[in-house]
Amino acid sequence: MTLRRSIAILGSTGSIGCNTLRVVDAFSDEFQIVALAAGRNVAKLSEQIARYKPELVSVETEESAEELRAELSRANVAAPPRLLTGEAGLIEVATHERASCIVSATVGAVGFVPTLCALEAGKRVALANKETLVIAGELMTRAARSAGAELLPVDSEHNALHQCLRGERREEVRRLVLTASGGPFRTKSRSEMERATVAEAMRHPTWNMGAKITIDSATLMNKGLEVIEARWLFGFEAEQIDVLVHPESIVHSMIELVDGSVIAQLGVTDMRHAIQYALTFPERRACQLPPLDLRQMSALHFDAPDTERFPCLALAYRALRAGGTSPAVLNAANEIAVAAFIAGRIRLTDIPRIIESVLDAHETRPVADLTTVLETDAAARLSATAEINRLIPVRG
Amino acid sequence: MTLRRSIAILGSTGSIGCNTLRVVDAFSDEFQIVALAAGRNVAKLSEQIARYKPELVSVETEESAEELRAELSRANVAAPPRLLTGEAGLIEVATHERASCIVSATVGAVGFVPTLCALEAGKRVALANKETLVIAGELMTRAARSAGAELLPVDSEHNALHQCLRGERREEVRRLVLTASGGPFRTKSRSEMERATVAEAMRHPTWNMGAKITIDSATLMNKGLEVIEARWLFGFEAEQIDVLVHPESIVHSMIELVDGSVIAQLGVTDMRHAIQYALTFPERRACQLPPLDLRQMSALHFDAPDTERFPCLALAYRALRAGGTSPAVLNAANEIAVAAFIAGRIRLTDIPRIIESVLDAHETRPVADLTTVLETDAAARLSATAEINRLIPVRG
Repeated sequence: MTLRRSIAILGSTGSIGCNTLRVVDAFSDEFQIVALAAGRNVAKLSEQIARYKPELVSVETEESAEELRAELSRANVAAPPRLLTGEAGLIEVATHERASCIVSATVGAVGFVPTLCALEAGKRVALANKETLVIAGELMTRAARSAGAELLPVDSEHNALHQCLRGERREEVRRLVLTASGGPFRTKSRSEMERATVAEAMRHPTWNMGAKITIDSATLMNKGLEVIEARWLFGFEAEQIDVLVHPESIVHSMIELVDGSVIAQLGVTDMRHAIQYALTFPERRACQLPPLDLRQMSALHFDAPDTERFPCLALAYRALRAGGTSPAVLNAANEIAVAAFIAGRIRLTDIPRIIESVLDAHETRPVADLTTVLETDAAARLSATAEINRLIPVRG
Repeated sequence: MTLRRSIAILGSTGSIGCNTLRVVDAFSDEFQIVALAAGRNVAKLSEQIARYKPELVSVETEESAEELRAELSRANVAAPPRLLTGEAGLIEVATHERASCIVSATVGAVGFVPTLCALEAGKRVALANKETLVIAGELMTRAARSAGAELLPVDSEHNALHQCLRGERREEVRRLVLTASGGPFRTKSRSEMERATVAEAMRHPTWNMGAKITIDSATLMNKGLEVIEARWLFGFEAEQIDVLVHPESIVHSMIELVDGSVIAQLGVTDMRHAIQYALTFPERRACQLPPLDLRQMSALHFDAPDTERFPCLALAYRALRAGGTSPAVLNAANEIAVAAFIAGRIRLTDIPRIIESVLDAHETRPVADLTTVLETDAAARLSATAEINRLIPVRG
């Protein structure tokens, strides 16, 4: 049966957004783009508009919108789309009447409210923005349940777990095992990590991704956020979610059943697989990408993660166990700290220090509503910024 | 929900039979033994009778039955079971009115007719006797379909495939990949294999099994038989079934989906897992066996099988592609050749030579009915025996 899905993308010019469009290209008789939202990359967005002819487009600022209008008129794009800006624009893209599937792929907390709106509108959400679930997994999954919306993970680990869980009964699953490449510092000493440059931290061994997520992979915070995400996507407790370092990133994740059987999903490291899965589910479509050839692979290794050298992972478990607003605090403090690291203001190893201080100072509250979450997020950002400013003069 | 399954075992004193009883021990409130069939191991069978109190028991010969009667009377077993012999006895065990699940675990072709009878009687068959499907997969699966009988594989590879396929649609599966440990000669040269002793061939690196199957593992014929078995169990063509050498035997097998995703089943090398799965399916039961700990594992390796050094694998594909009676010929010639090797009459590397000669001389016919299969089996055994006798004088 031919799928006829109309797609809206939040974050169309980013890594996941562009890969989503490549998947759409491969199945152009099944998928159609109806709306796109991007940040400030007007040049790329304008190309996407010319090619995919969305009805609605949103950009971050009024300035970018002006630039885009000029660009579209210069390129002589026929029937330019309706153009919006800011969070209101993102929300309109996320709830576009004709869109049946929303790819939520903005980076950081900005995708939170629009994704929630998409779920409330009963859309299928293909979720690449893991912060969304970290910040407010409870609100998100509650909204999805009550609107009958599907929430399908696009990052390779959760997508793998989703695939492993297809044939299984929830109560017969003993634990989830997320694999982690270990990042560029897997075999580095603590002191090497203290001195790590941004360029070194950006050298991810197996995946080609955006800057924020690459730094998160270097600190293993990415895996910590994924543990929290898994908790909400699949409804397991922190004790049932484990992490295994697997440098080759071939086994994308696995589940252990109560009878001791382990089901794993393996694949090549190309995000298009997970995106395609989320768009075509419950069906699968033949894919032209080169398949996994295990005969060509070096050996596969598995090891326990070292939470001494990678304290971010332990901090994520701490926030998950504390529950309520704590994961939102973890996420906000991490975003601020990572930005400061990328800006060259702090060291890589300062990132967990800052997060820990912010978590220590935070008093966990239940996530009652949207306001609680947004207030928590804003307060944690301020707190992290203050912590960074406190740290920098010390360093001189 | 508590399962209430009454079980009959064909081959209760063998490796799979004994492991089945250990699984029954672990779930004594869910499983009950109603009938047992064994060969000539009267001592072990008598212990099993005292412990599990089956209603019906069958042994291979009248002699063994006499021995067993004496043993049971000496051991003062209260209410001894009804005692039968030969194929008729095996069939009565396999179709016992009260048995809902038959574990078919005899070695070689002897289990063929009883297993077919169990399927015709609509029983769930937990199949460890892979020859059954090799000899007459078409008859078996047709019988299962028309009687609504379930056929569940007990060997670890097919059990793994069964688990991998649980959540998938048949038409979305691109291929099956059976893993093979590679056996004790995986890294040996051709001339080392020419000189191999029975003791060397019996040293299986990862699994503890019976003699026939261990030799089959050393020649990779075991994997060849499994390819044919997979064809019938899951309905895929020869081209869709691949073999990958995986010396650690941790990944028990995998499937590749049309979208390039690979689903694998992993576990420790203990047959009780697969047996338990076949007995409890579609449910899973918590298992007290130590779970797989990938952190404790050395690296996992995968490689293409070498059909130059292991011609038995290529012969099995040849027989599968030829179809009809050819797999039965392959199996019969292999059984005779393996017995001659174990008896010290021929070399390990003579096994494929003998099978190839017998296959060359055979004219493939369609498997019309039981008689065709049985005649083919008998003729191939004679042909293989003649081939062995022809070979031995040459050797001096």
